[in-house]
Amino acid sequence: MLENITCSKLKNMTLKELLALCEEIREVITATVLNNGGHLSSNLGAVELTVALHYVFDFPADKLVFDVGHQCYTHKLLTGRYSRFNTIRKKGGLSGFPKREESAFDCYNVGHAGTSVSAALGIAKARDVKGENYNVIALIGDGSFNNGLIYEAFNSLRLLNTNIFVILNDNGMSIAPTVGSMHEYLEILSQDDGQRAKKDKHAKIFERFGFAYDGVYDGNDLEKMITKLTEIKERLKTQSVILHVLTKKGKGYAFCEDNPEATHGISAPNEKVTEYSQVLGKTLVRLAEKNEKITAVTAAMTSSLGLSEFFNKFPERSVDVGICEEHATILCASMAAAGLKPYYAVYSTFLQRSFDEIMIDICSQNLPVTMCVDRAGISGADGETHQGVFDLSFLGMIPNLTIAVPKDTAEFEKILEASADFNAPLAIRYPRAGKKIFPCDGNFAFGKWEKLVAGGGKYAVIGCGERALSIAFKAVEILKNDGVEIAVINARFVKPLDYGLLDGLTEEVVITVEDNVLAGGFGSLVAQYYSESGKVVKNIAYSDKFIPHGGVNELMRELGVSEGSVVNYVKAYENR
Amino acid sequence: MLENITCSKLKNMTLKELLALCEEIREVITATVLNNGGHLSSNLGAVELTVALHYVFDFPADKLVFDVGHQCYTHKLLTGRYSRFNTIRKKGGLSGFPKREESAFDCYNVGHAGTSVSAALGIAKARDVKGENYNVIALIGDGSFNNGLIYEAFNSLRLLNTNIFVILNDNGMSIAPTVGSMHEYLEILSQDDGQRAKKDKHAKIFERFGFAYDGVYDGNDLEKMITKLTEIKERLKTQSVILHVLTKKGKGYAFCEDNPEATHGISAPNEKVTEYSQVLGKTLVRLAEKNEKITAVTAAMTSSLGLSEFFNKFPERSVDVGICEEHATILCASMAAAGLKPYYAVYSTFLQRSFDEIMIDICSQNLPVTMCVDRAGISGADGETHQGVFDLSFLGMIPNLTIAVPKDTAEFEKILEASADFNAPLAIRYPRAGKKIFPCDGNFAFGKWEKLVAGGGKYAVIGCGERALSIAFKAVEILKNDGVEIAVINARFVKPLDYGLLDGLTEEVVITVEDNVLAGGFGSLVAQYYSESGKVVKNIAYSDKFIPHGGVNELMRELGVSEGSVVNYVKAYENR
Repeated sequence: MLENITCSKLKNMTLKELLALCEEIREVITATVLNNGGHLSSNLGAVELTVALHYVFDFPADKLVFDVGHQCYTHKLLTGRYSRFNTIRKKGGLSGFPKREESAFDCYNVGHAGTSVSAALGIAKARDVKGENYNVIALIGDGSFNNGLIYEAFNSLRLLNTNIFVILNDNGMSIAPTVGSMHEYLEILSQDDGQRAKKDKHAKIFERFGFAYDGVYDGNDLEKMITKLTEIKERLKTQSVILHVLTKKGKGYAFCEDNPEATHGISAPNEKVTEYSQVLGKTLVRLAEKNEKITAVTAAMTSSLGLSEFFNKFPERSVDVGICEEHATILCASMAAAGLKPYYAVYSTFLQRSFDEIMIDICSQNLPVTMCVDRAGISGADGETHQGVFDLSFLGMIPNLTIAVPKDTAEFEKILEASADFNAPLAIRYPRAGKKIFPCDGNFAFGKWEKLVAGGGKYAVIGCGERALSIAFKAVEILKNDGVEIAVINARFVKPLDYGLLDGLTEEVVITVEDNVLAGGFGSLVAQYYSESGKVVKNIAYSDKFIPHGGVNELMRELGVSEGSVVNYVKAYENR
Repeated sequence: MLENITCSKLKNMTLKELLALCEEIREVITATVLNNGGHLSSNLGAVELTVALHYVFDFPADKLVFDVGHQCYTHKLLTGRYSRFNTIRKKGGLSGFPKREESAFDCYNVGHAGTSVSAALGIAKARDVKGENYNVIALIGDGSFNNGLIYEAFNSLRLLNTNIFVILNDNGMSIAPTVGSMHEYLEILSQDDGQRAKKDKHAKIFERFGFAYDGVYDGNDLEKMITKLTEIKERLKTQSVILHVLTKKGKGYAFCEDNPEATHGISAPNEKVTEYSQVLGKTLVRLAEKNEKITAVTAAMTSSLGLSEFFNKFPERSVDVGICEEHATILCASMAAAGLKPYYAVYSTFLQRSFDEIMIDICSQNLPVTMCVDRAGISGADGETHQGVFDLSFLGMIPNLTIAVPKDTAEFEKILEASADFNAPLAIRYPRAGKKIFPCDGNFAFGKWEKLVAGGGKYAVIGCGERALSIAFKAVEILKNDGVEIAVINARFVKPLDYGLLDGLTEEVVITVEDNVLAGGFGSLVAQYYSESGKVVKNIAYSDKFIPHGGVNELMRELGVSEGSVVNYVKAYENR
């Protein structure tokens, strides 16, 4: 049925046909995700809910705003993207997230948590200003519902004097089980199939903010969903509604239902495991055994950051605050202000949310918080909203902050060990996958680089991080065949630069390589440092564009962060 | 009494003496702020509350975390800083905000809204981990209470399994009157001297999050405050408490009581008026009369951004969401996605909070939102947490974004007019004060710079913004006396750079000047662009340090962003 589905066909289906459609959707999603990687159990839980939405509402006239976008696959399948669904998350294929560029049915791009209610309000306000007439729906999971943006949006509903429809898809999980008092409250509301909510007026919180509260406590029951949505569609003409829907994460696929955290995000079969996060976990446990002041803070992704063992071993020194990156950052700063030694582990892309708090709370107070910045550089299949290619730039401008970029997992361990006695703000950035592959000069010191290849000619390549140094070593091999010698330097600290080493470089041409954008990144810091000297500096980094989804290596190559760029530059310079 | 006050003396005072102390504090604050500038009415409202806190609790053993810090003057006067209080906000003098570096009584530095509850939780958690025993108090105003961080912190209280004391000082104002449903709810709670809260169990919201709610609905009554705080100090041994205190902003100074918004922040007598914000207000009104899609969004500072007239004239196209910079940013993005033309006006320092939303919501979707970034560059007397010296760097790395830096108010008007038809993300950054002073080549175009002084020698100075170009012109005058000719170029767009102009520059030495940090700023973009060419580039910008409070000009001079730096560099180059 999916192959030729359209919105109008779907609206004319019987319940039986719709149920069969749901099963087909489940099969397609499962088969595709097991092959391509992607978000599995979150999407499986939202099948009936999404089919019901399409049955009752009129998209794309009505607007559906996803939160994060981990639930959008069914929506994609129902809106003309079935035939390309096998390309999802592949380079040039469908995005794993809603994308306006991809379909008129996607009205707002997302990727980071908590934005949907704000965005729905803005769209509704625009509708009102323009005198138009359509429904605006925010579909948000209970994990995102912990984010402070939700409160800011709820708090302004009456102020904006508009109507929206918020669907809270509550499966009890963000990536990990959802934490916090708001979720405990949601659990109370759903007791006794919502009778509790009616009796005790527990739903007052939402009414305070201008929403009528309603619930479907078996959100995988398609018929119930359709009935309730039909009823609410009428009510939306005069008021804003929040519909609390309980669904089962991973519904319909036993392995997912039993393992919702492990199957939230599935890696494609050929993706590497995350060696850096393993090193983080093991090393931090070892350090914490010796140092009672060490604490670990995460924002809803403890296990993928490698910290499960730490959390199990030191529960009183572990905090997962849910998807609240800003709060997590301030918790670390204040713990440090009160004498602890906190480690904040987070993906590079989500660290962006804390830019102001890193600046003011951690760094302007010069507090010894260590940020372990995982999934740095191109992260790949999640695309624009998830690439970790800005961190060297937005961290690089912050005073008092030291930025370390280990060349391999062994150096990561060394930096972590050194961090325990480092009494100032520190960020350590590393990619998802890696292994120990590089030589080492044995003289590790904070702020000092190391020369890995002596060179001897006109050229020095300075790289930071495993990916950049791999490129440097490959370029050395290729150019050796042409008789060109190149020095290779491991810039394991991007802030401060090793000014002593830079001052002493005798090579005529310095080539920098990094897995970060050009503007404000590592190479631009080197270029700026040399700017009065007239030394020739060639920066190899990502240019000024958002980077879509694709494989890490294919994207890096296409974007020119590759040994080819080093080799071509050197050859051109030789022949100038 | 204030002159020799200590915490132990204060604890031995009679109520009558304490009341006299409050009056003395009021007089000192009023006299000092009228002279030095600073936060007046917010501080006047919190005098009794703060004296009561010092009477009941034991600082610095107990910890008092301020939110924003607009209420900390009484605390400063009571903790050994009376004799230096006349230096407040002056260079080298006391900070206008809490500062750990200044006193053991200041346990956490603040400046941006909403951080206090998170910080109090982190300190309390550290206390628990270390097995210590003291009280942790967050003192927050109702304006800050709108910020999403509060929700994130409240949501994690039970999770952290600790006890804190939150005092909500509710004066009904942030800078402007406090907006939003949460504040409406607070008003209900305080009706009938709190009887309403008790009867209807309205305070359930706070209980949901693990706080016992209590109230003092005449928070300027010192005796009531002392009684209630004494009672709560006992309760804190076993539970977290939120105390809702109603106070009168500007209390005790009739002019402030009548004009709380105008007297929230007082400028020192010699500070200039804000010409740029006047231009914003007038121009935007004119544009909006012709274009029905134009909307204006602010986060609690409509009047100081110059938008009062716009808000009065186009109420349905105006939104002040309270202190919710991230929500405001997403509202703009989503309004633009739905066909409007939104302008988001904000201070540079507060724009930092929206870094992720500018990146993902506005720029990755390439939406036509115009950010009007006021108080850019050194803002002066508010110090570290308020300097707008990072925006060129954190905006400069974001793809799809155009950054304009008008050289004067006339050019600002021109850029605003051009923005109406500009269909992509745009940031316009400008300082607080300015006047029309510069010549103009008459050929304004997006992305194009202009040459203001032809020069003819070895040197070109490229400056962005009024302050930088003033420095350039002064340097030209000085060096003319030495027979050195210097070209002056107005880089009115920092992104993109005017590559055509840069490629055509024949001068041997390029000197950049900006009112921004060096790392990732305007000059570093120019240095990077020339890095392969061997051209000599000298960047004049702020080095890698947080900039404390002081006068704009004295700070710029001390930090070397001055004509002296240009002149010295040129002279040294001449003599090299």
